[in-house]
Amino acid sequence: MNYDAVVIGSGVGGYSTAISLSNRERSVAIIEEHLVGGECVNYGCVPTKAFYHFSEALRILKKINSEAYWNWKDLVKWVNELVSDTRSNLIHLLEKKGVEIIHGRALLKDHKHIRIGDFEVSTNAVVLATGTDPKSLKNLVFDNKQVLSNRDVLKLEEKPSSILIVGGGVIGIEFANIFSNLGINIKIVEALDHILPFIDQDVALSIKKYMVEKGVEIYEKTYVENVSKIGDELSVKLSNGESFKVDHVFVAVGREPKTRGIGLENTGVELDNAGFIKVGDGYETSAKDIYAVGDVTGPPLLAHKAIIEGILASKSIVGIKVGKLDSHLIPQTIFSGLEVAFIGYTEKELIEKKIGFKKYKLPIYYLSAVRIKDSKYSFVKILVNEHDPNVIHGVQIVSPNASEVISSFIPILMGRIALSEAATTPYPHLTVSETVREIAEFVLGESIHVVIKK
Amino acid sequence: MNYDAVVIGSGVGGYSTAISLSNRERSVAIIEEHLVGGECVNYGCVPTKAFYHFSEALRILKKINSEAYWNWKDLVKWVNELVSDTRSNLIHLLEKKGVEIIHGRALLKDHKHIRIGDFEVSTNAVVLATGTDPKSLKNLVFDNKQVLSNRDVLKLEEKPSSILIVGGGVIGIEFANIFSNLGINIKIVEALDHILPFIDQDVALSIKKYMVEKGVEIYEKTYVENVSKIGDELSVKLSNGESFKVDHVFVAVGREPKTRGIGLENTGVELDNAGFIKVGDGYETSAKDIYAVGDVTGPPLLAHKAIIEGILASKSIVGIKVGKLDSHLIPQTIFSGLEVAFIGYTEKELIEKKIGFKKYKLPIYYLSAVRIKDSKYSFVKILVNEHDPNVIHGVQIVSPNASEVISSFIPILMGRIALSEAATTPYPHLTVSETVREIAEFVLGESIHVVIKK
Repeated sequence: MNYDAVVIGSGVGGYSTAISLSNRERSVAIIEEHLVGGECVNYGCVPTKAFYHFSEALRILKKINSEAYWNWKDLVKWVNELVSDTRSNLIHLLEKKGVEIIHGRALLKDHKHIRIGDFEVSTNAVVLATGTDPKSLKNLVFDNKQVLSNRDVLKLEEKPSSILIVGGGVIGIEFANIFSNLGINIKIVEALDHILPFIDQDVALSIKKYMVEKGVEIYEKTYVENVSKIGDELSVKLSNGESFKVDHVFVAVGREPKTRGIGLENTGVELDNAGFIKVGDGYETSAKDIYAVGDVTGPPLLAHKAIIEGILASKSIVGIKVGKLDSHLIPQTIFSGLEVAFIGYTEKELIEKKIGFKKYKLPIYYLSAVRIKDSKYSFVKILVNEHDPNVIHGVQIVSPNASEVISSFIPILMGRIALSEAATTPYPHLTVSETVREIAEFVLGESIHVVIKK
Repeated sequence: MNYDAVVIGSGVGGYSTAISLSNRERSVAIIEEHLVGGECVNYGCVPTKAFYHFSEALRILKKINSEAYWNWKDLVKWVNELVSDTRSNLIHLLEKKGVEIIHGRALLKDHKHIRIGDFEVSTNAVVLATGTDPKSLKNLVFDNKQVLSNRDVLKLEEKPSSILIVGGGVIGIEFANIFSNLGINIKIVEALDHILPFIDQDVALSIKKYMVEKGVEIYEKTYVENVSKIGDELSVKLSNGESFKVDHVFVAVGREPKTRGIGLENTGVELDNAGFIKVGDGYETSAKDIYAVGDVTGPPLLAHKAIIEGILASKSIVGIKVGKLDSHLIPQTIFSGLEVAFIGYTEKELIEKKIGFKKYKLPIYYLSAVRIKDSKYSFVKILVNEHDPNVIHGVQIVSPNASEVISSFIPILMGRIALSEAATTPYPHLTVSETVREIAEFVLGESIHVVIKK
């Protein structure tokens, strides 16, 4: 059997490439060794956001001291059904789009031939979309029962009473929020200086205050020294000398690219220092006719990056000249109740790049949409070029609904909407999107709702 | 006492104008006969969205058959506190900005002199921002106890068991959703052909199905023939012959401008046929040095319109030439769980204006953000110029979070982001904002997630 293209991995990056090729009348197969849909559909975005949605409702109820009675099994069942529906719909979509799904593990023999068990296919182009696996630690190896990765949460049969989360990155913080909303006792240890170490410290600090206020204990500059099983519990010793018992340890210390055991050594595909696959324009790897998209090409590990990469790679495969997605314009989001969303460069990055900038930071608790939905720690920050006020280098939002609102800043970062226009654009009241107008007014020194000290 | 400007009414339009003038170093007073903050702060957006926020949490809980125990008095207390905090903050802001607040009823003696009780002020410019009052009906006069307007909800001491809402417009539908989430039995009567009569029928139909599914009874082409008190209940007879008893009738049949009793007859300010104040460029009325902003200038009656009008009017007053807000670019929102948001022209309007268009309508229940958050009736619709695919005439969204997402369509309607660009822009996963990319792909015939019939 010969295809125009074979995609290895059916996660978001893989299926987007496959469907996009099929839309362009190419014959495509997709090889999947586990569950169709990959990490996002089965273990990542979909179940996480379902848990998140429910858990936030519980949090809101607490505002007026109401109480909710709910059942862990019912919650997990609802989430599992959402996941399996999403997966079935995706399989159905792939079939309708004429993409063949081959179940099994792919082994590249060369850049044209792929083995799947006893079976071999040939292809004009290969797309690597194998994604990543959760990293474990030497003293914390996943056992799927007590030492958990994000993939194990849907399998928990009972509501835990306590969880230690190792790693204060995006996954760690999102689950800390969800678990804490669900009434589980949560501690986080982060080895680096502060949680969310890749972002500016003021953002991390807002989230830290928010988490601490809801009862999450956070240990920074701390690591797990030792974990031992005592019956159904785990006894944990931290580097700061503290010890305690927990039901589970949830390890969220990062992801590693899935590049082993698929025959890359037979192809000349090069990896970068962190082990991710190197790609150039049009998502071509260093090997002829082999492309790569999605998480396996390196950070940021985001489904929306993977979708667009899939579309661009498919264009490239059919001979349309395309570049790469401008990483500067990829919004990143943390679904943490008090959400974080950002786009462009952080202060840290601008300082490293020696780009001069002016920082405008506006606490936005005064906005009714923020006040009703939460948190005194909300703010928006905009980083404007020092010499040219029309060049915006970065925007960071810490606020409920930040994940939706950041999209309204994309045209501002692209330079398509000037701040002077945004200041008189009627973003709807009462929404968090009004933040766009508010920060624009603030930068221009024309705030209605804020007293600007002169 | 002489001011550079005196603003009559301290609602959103009024306070925005006053503060914006004060920011421009003008001496300003604001006259308020009732509560500072006007309709939005005290009876409209703020309390409504607080009720909405809490009631939606209750709805989400029902998904997994969980139960919530909460208390009407606690809810009303929380909402009342939010409202009074917002009002106090506004008073504080006005003071800090140097705007004088004069309590009392304003009576214009001419275009330069205003009486407030025994007291008189003179001014170089007058801004009318008196807003609107809820309309009552001949056989349904507000008594603040059984026959209610939106202003009475915060005063209800007990949770009603049933309410008849008269009028299926924005306010009627928003309250129907809130009340129904709170477990109150709701019926709506709408005299016209369908609820939300100002919008395209497919939008109204989605909302109708959603409301009916949650147990709201909707009577279209129906009016209230008679209401009589029977003890604590009201006995209602409809034009279709049906009769029933309810605790309250909530009248939401529209708003009327507050233009009487303020001495307009002494000024030459002209009204339009519907009784709203006529304004030209810079929000000048037909009378010299008299301006008007906000709801009293006519529909759409929206706080975000009022804010921008206030800013533009203040510029105009200080001598900067400005036009009027482009009504085509004012997004409108309905906070109804399954929310509605739209911008630009509706199909109905385009047909009336004889503008040829192509309609692209995409059901978006397949998006995980929509599926998790709700409703199979979600869709997005985009109306593209028949001859020039780069001209977008209108966008309508029916979806959870539509009120935040519509802001991302503003640059598309402005022509600043082409659909071909939106199709490869990484709107964050998993959010409803992905709708922008999805509809763009759909219009271009390049959908990843949708099978396009050819």
